[in-house]
Amino acid sequence: MGTRYIPSPALLTDLYQLTMAYGYWKVGMAEHRAVFHLFFRKNPFKGGYAIAAGLSAAVSLLERWQYSSDDLAYLAGLTGNDGQPLFEQGFLDYLRDTPLGIDVDALPEGTAAFPHQPLMRLSGPLIQCQLLETPLLTILNFQTLIATKSSRICRAAAGESVLEFGLRRAQGVDGGLSASRAAYIGGCNATSNVLAGKLYDIPVKGTHAHSWVMAFDTERAAFEAYASAMPNNCVFLVDTYDTVEGVRTAVEVGTALRERGYEMVGIRLDSGDLAALSQAARTILDEGGFPDAAVVASDSLDEHRIAELKSRGSCITVWGVGTNLTTAKDQPALGGVYKLAAIAAPGKPWAYRIKLSEHPIKVSNPGIQQIRRYTDDDGRFIGDQIFEVDQGADHTLESLAHPGSTTEIPTSAHSTDLLEPIYRAGEKVWEEPSIHAIRERAAEQLSLLPPDVVTGKADYPVGLSPALSTLKAALMAAARRS
Amino acid sequence: MGTRYIPSPALLTDLYQLTMAYGYWKVGMAEHRAVFHLFFRKNPFKGGYAIAAGLSAAVSLLERWQYSSDDLAYLAGLTGNDGQPLFEQGFLDYLRDTPLGIDVDALPEGTAAFPHQPLMRLSGPLIQCQLLETPLLTILNFQTLIATKSSRICRAAAGESVLEFGLRRAQGVDGGLSASRAAYIGGCNATSNVLAGKLYDIPVKGTHAHSWVMAFDTERAAFEAYASAMPNNCVFLVDTYDTVEGVRTAVEVGTALRERGYEMVGIRLDSGDLAALSQAARTILDEGGFPDAAVVASDSLDEHRIAELKSRGSCITVWGVGTNLTTAKDQPALGGVYKLAAIAAPGKPWAYRIKLSEHPIKVSNPGIQQIRRYTDDDGRFIGDQIFEVDQGADHTLESLAHPGSTTEIPTSAHSTDLLEPIYRAGEKVWEEPSIHAIRERAAEQLSLLPPDVVTGKADYPVGLSPALSTLKAALMAAARRS
Repeated sequence: MGTRYIPSPALLTDLYQLTMAYGYWKVGMAEHRAVFHLFFRKNPFKGGYAIAAGLSAAVSLLERWQYSSDDLAYLAGLTGNDGQPLFEQGFLDYLRDTPLGIDVDALPEGTAAFPHQPLMRLSGPLIQCQLLETPLLTILNFQTLIATKSSRICRAAAGESVLEFGLRRAQGVDGGLSASRAAYIGGCNATSNVLAGKLYDIPVKGTHAHSWVMAFDTERAAFEAYASAMPNNCVFLVDTYDTVEGVRTAVEVGTALRERGYEMVGIRLDSGDLAALSQAARTILDEGGFPDAAVVASDSLDEHRIAELKSRGSCITVWGVGTNLTTAKDQPALGGVYKLAAIAAPGKPWAYRIKLSEHPIKVSNPGIQQIRRYTDDDGRFIGDQIFEVDQGADHTLESLAHPGSTTEIPTSAHSTDLLEPIYRAGEKVWEEPSIHAIRERAAEQLSLLPPDVVTGKADYPVGLSPALSTLKAALMAAARRS
Repeated sequence: MGTRYIPSPALLTDLYQLTMAYGYWKVGMAEHRAVFHLFFRKNPFKGGYAIAAGLSAAVSLLERWQYSSDDLAYLAGLTGNDGQPLFEQGFLDYLRDTPLGIDVDALPEGTAAFPHQPLMRLSGPLIQCQLLETPLLTILNFQTLIATKSSRICRAAAGESVLEFGLRRAQGVDGGLSASRAAYIGGCNATSNVLAGKLYDIPVKGTHAHSWVMAFDTERAAFEAYASAMPNNCVFLVDTYDTVEGVRTAVEVGTALRERGYEMVGIRLDSGDLAALSQAARTILDEGGFPDAAVVASDSLDEHRIAELKSRGSCITVWGVGTNLTTAKDQPALGGVYKLAAIAAPGKPWAYRIKLSEHPIKVSNPGIQQIRRYTDDDGRFIGDQIFEVDQGADHTLESLAHPGSTTEIPTSAHSTDLLEPIYRAGEKVWEEPSIHAIRERAAEQLSLLPPDVVTGKADYPVGLSPALSTLKAALMAAARRS
């Protein structure tokens, strides 16, 4: 969704992409090829890793990327500071008539990703690569952000269920839908978002709100009515009036339900001291004959609050997480960027490019990049090398963060190249995995990372190949001389 | 957009809305009527006001709110903890066959809104009001948040142009589109988002990025090529290599452009000390014969950073704002809620409802509410009263934040009731204003508010009518007795 249903996917971009595309076309660079990489520079949430997500939506955008006659008419009406059109008709015809001709390589969704590693590499017509910058960033930035946040929250829950509840606080319709999808990839067990459930094959969960209780004269009447209506889906929200009293009522209604042959699923807490109330609820449930009943809790939860509640001995067994997950409240944007790394006129070899910065760590990497992940005999991750595909990889990682420092990979290590072909010359060459397989991949990746990397205590070793490092240094020196 | 193009708008809700709807249907409350209000409890960004937005998207959702056979098949497949379906077929038929029958009243977009005031009131079939809670919150929460953030940023810019650039960091496709729309309502002059420009009739702006400069051998060659391609839209991005050098090159290319009969629009700074660089750029532009050229700046700007740059004597004339606006980074969710205020069985009078809380300010208000805004002879806002429509309004505001404290409105004051009819019995009775009229309304509202309220130094007087306050107190006392 999002991209599958937007009316004019080719216009989902910044105007400057179109004015640059026009410029390239106008000055005779329409046939130039380029290589761009999409990457982030810092792990989100001060953590040790990110979980790549959003590729499926990106592909669905690329599959539908074309200019309608409406779109072209809109562009034809845009004017510059002299009141004359920005774009010549010949350019608009070019947009209409030129099919997508790019190669795309990408990290599979659910892969653990690190700063400076391409989440996606585009190679092909300069104009098309440029036009696609904005929507690819929109999609990959956000879904990667939320998959990572979800992974952090689910790690804090330590194997207990996490439900994503955030649609009402999401940033727009697709903010909610794509957050539900990415949250599931990151480890959530289910969502409250019914449309996300339908579109993405995610389990959906939900029972009742305070308004249900308020619609009846008493809490007991509300619980009894709910149990009579939907006996196979009873999680009673117990904090509308008095929480402890609410749990007692839930036990009584649950006992009557059991006599009808149904089992109460549990109770939900949504306010107050969740640690203390969950302990009180557990005791009442256990003594009332419901040792297996869930204690669901919600109320501004995130990974930090879950850890704190666990450290205080909470008896919560299911964590409902909303705003803090769906909007990634403590860092609501990933900050991924998209940088030109090589350009070539027709028939000419690649000219490599870097973007300079006062901060060495912000200087972009040149060339056509691939990531090689080294693993030990048990499949555990040792370190990743970013290398230039024509130069090839080797076993020395030149640190990006600490120039001069290197990590040696044992020659006995196994390795996989992470970027997989998605498009070749505009043709999709990729099969979408199921969302369940993506979610399993994300969980497996965490299990294969060094534990200190997962917790953010240590940096995962990521480096350039010595050859790429040398190429970059030469380009920096040349740029500073000029 | 967002709502206009989603495939199954009726499924864009939390599952618990559907399970509650089923419960109401099942226990014989399908014909009950209810009144719900959607409101927020705290001004966002620690500010003094919010700007209501999102009504247009909410109406487009309501216009398309129906269950497809696909949607119903999906719901029929959901199961409870006994593996049996959650929903009986009769309920799914009811959903399919029951047209929207609600009354909706809402604050017009662009209206200054305050805590506890309904942004929207729904009245009608309990089941339908319940099902609509989630998508209405999603839409109104986010657009109100962004219109407010935009208003704050544009106030800091003090009449200078503000461009919204945030699509690449937006939370999903619709996060970007609806943020562009709301940002324009709040005061932004244009967006970079081409699709938002087309869909919503917002001016679009854009010229070139660093990648344009990097695609050429030198910055000068890049500027010259851009000027030759698009002479009527020249804002040169000058910080790819050396900013001051870049401004000088822009002046030279701008001088040559002028000889061709075109005028350079300006230059853009995107990194470094923006205050100092903008001063240097201004001097070079002025001395080079371009006193009217714009100095555009971008780089993590928000209202605080703009104020700081202005206080440091920056010469920036156009402010480009991205992530901090589009995601409302310092507070990425509004936290609006939706509470039941009255319920009635067929043929019975309304039974008023409140939601209790340990915090008196979080106890919801009962009854069918309207907001009366009192103004002086010049149209300036004096204070607002939330009153129950059957009780009527008067001139004493009972403070919500400070129980016992009242504000007296002069009997000579003029007044307007703010909630306007949008739907009556499911029929739309509202004409959508143009986005430009909405934007003007937002600007006018700020000009009519007390200046100390606009800056957040003083609270705007908002109170309950004495009669509503008495009703609420009686309900609280009754609830605590029971």
